[in-house]
Amino acid sequence: MKSDHIPRATIKRLAMYVQVLESFKREGTQVVSSELLARTCNVNPSQIRKDLAYFGEFGVRGVGYHVQDLITAIKRSLGVDRMWKCALVGVGNLGKALLRHREFKYRGFDIVAAFDCDPFKIGEEVIGLEVVCTRRLKETARELDIEIGLITTPPDRAQRAANFLAEAGIKGIINFAPARITVPSDVHVEYVDFFHHLYAVSFSITLDQRPKTQPAAV
Amino acid sequence: MKSDHIPRATIKRLAMYVQVLESFKREGTQVVSSELLARTCNVNPSQIRKDLAYFGEFGVRGVGYHVQDLITAIKRSLGVDRMWKCALVGVGNLGKALLRHREFKYRGFDIVAAFDCDPFKIGEEVIGLEVVCTRRLKETARELDIEIGLITTPPDRAQRAANFLAEAGIKGIINFAPARITVPSDVHVEYVDFFHHLYAVSFSITLDQRPKTQPAAV
Repeated sequence: MKSDHIPRATIKRLAMYVQVLESFKREGTQVVSSELLARTCNVNPSQIRKDLAYFGEFGVRGVGYHVQDLITAIKRSLGVDRMWKCALVGVGNLGKALLRHREFKYRGFDIVAAFDCDPFKIGEEVIGLEVVCTRRLKETARELDIEIGLITTPPDRAQRAANFLAEAGIKGIINFAPARITVPSDVHVEYVDFFHHLYAVSFSITLDQRPKTQPAAV
Repeated sequence: MKSDHIPRATIKRLAMYVQVLESFKREGTQVVSSELLARTCNVNPSQIRKDLAYFGEFGVRGVGYHVQDLITAIKRSLGVDRMWKCALVGVGNLGKALLRHREFKYRGFDIVAAFDCDPFKIGEEVIGLEVVCTRRLKETARELDIEIGLITTPPDRAQRAANFLAEAGIKGIINFAPARITVPSDVHVEYVDFFHHLYAVSFSITLDQRPKTQPAAV
């Protein structure tokens, strides 16, 4: 991730702040104190102030943050204050769930094309979107100005999907398939891996359940 | 996350190592060099050695790591060398996709119960699992010895789902809903948020597209 001035951990927290701020907004809250924002996000207030300092001065002393202004400022800084056109490759269960997930469009990511190589799926409609043969990805992606690709294929098809996306000139890939992929250096890849969350939770439970004075032999 | 001796970033990488090692195993590879493992994971070899040092000595100098031994050792250390019984709350599109996702069981997480509060969904079968009313979560979870809950409800239902799970004595929650939840201090929560990945990718693309000598006014 060359030329990425904002650390990845910060981007992760900024995404969380936006999520929390959006829910404050839905509830009609216009101003939020940094303490409440911090508590809701389970982050300490000084961390929030530090994260927001990347974008200049925010917040009014003694008042807090203007919810809408802060959402706008974070989104603008991250380049997500506009719609990004996305294509999804692999219309299986997860792919269909993502196509139907309202949050994507709401958050600025519009999935405008869906691809699959299964002849039984090609031509099928999912929420009004016709599944297109993956071989036509390049022309379709260029026609529709697609910028981000979501891979939801089985693991052994992920690399092939990545190749098609890269050949179409797409510079950002979110890989939901449980497989590593190789792409040209100017393509940015993010891996969505549910399992480290499951590992983290089961590890924590395991530790809690271990007897405090653990016998050396265990 | 009290009593968590292994840093969270390490757990994330360990989950990735397991994923990559499992794919080596599927291809029939028995021994892998730390260089190849590092390259496939896009991590430097010294980082891998450091991560694995949490669990003692691994690897044979000049040979590499025994794939199966390393998988076993990492899984044992994280407490994921056994099946964990999971319950899913919220049988919408994402919930159904996760119920049908083969990787969960393969990775040691067996979703044995599915709950929803929608009368039209209760009684429905998804891959042989009958959707049960969320009000019956407590008794069902205890009957089935459920240890981990997956929340896939809409955001405004996530807290209610978390309450039901906590009341049932479940100590681990993976929240896929785009909402923060509050739970008793002995319950471990992990948030699965797709959007920070989308933010990271669009931010990187935006940076790449900005002119190198950026006018001060932009």
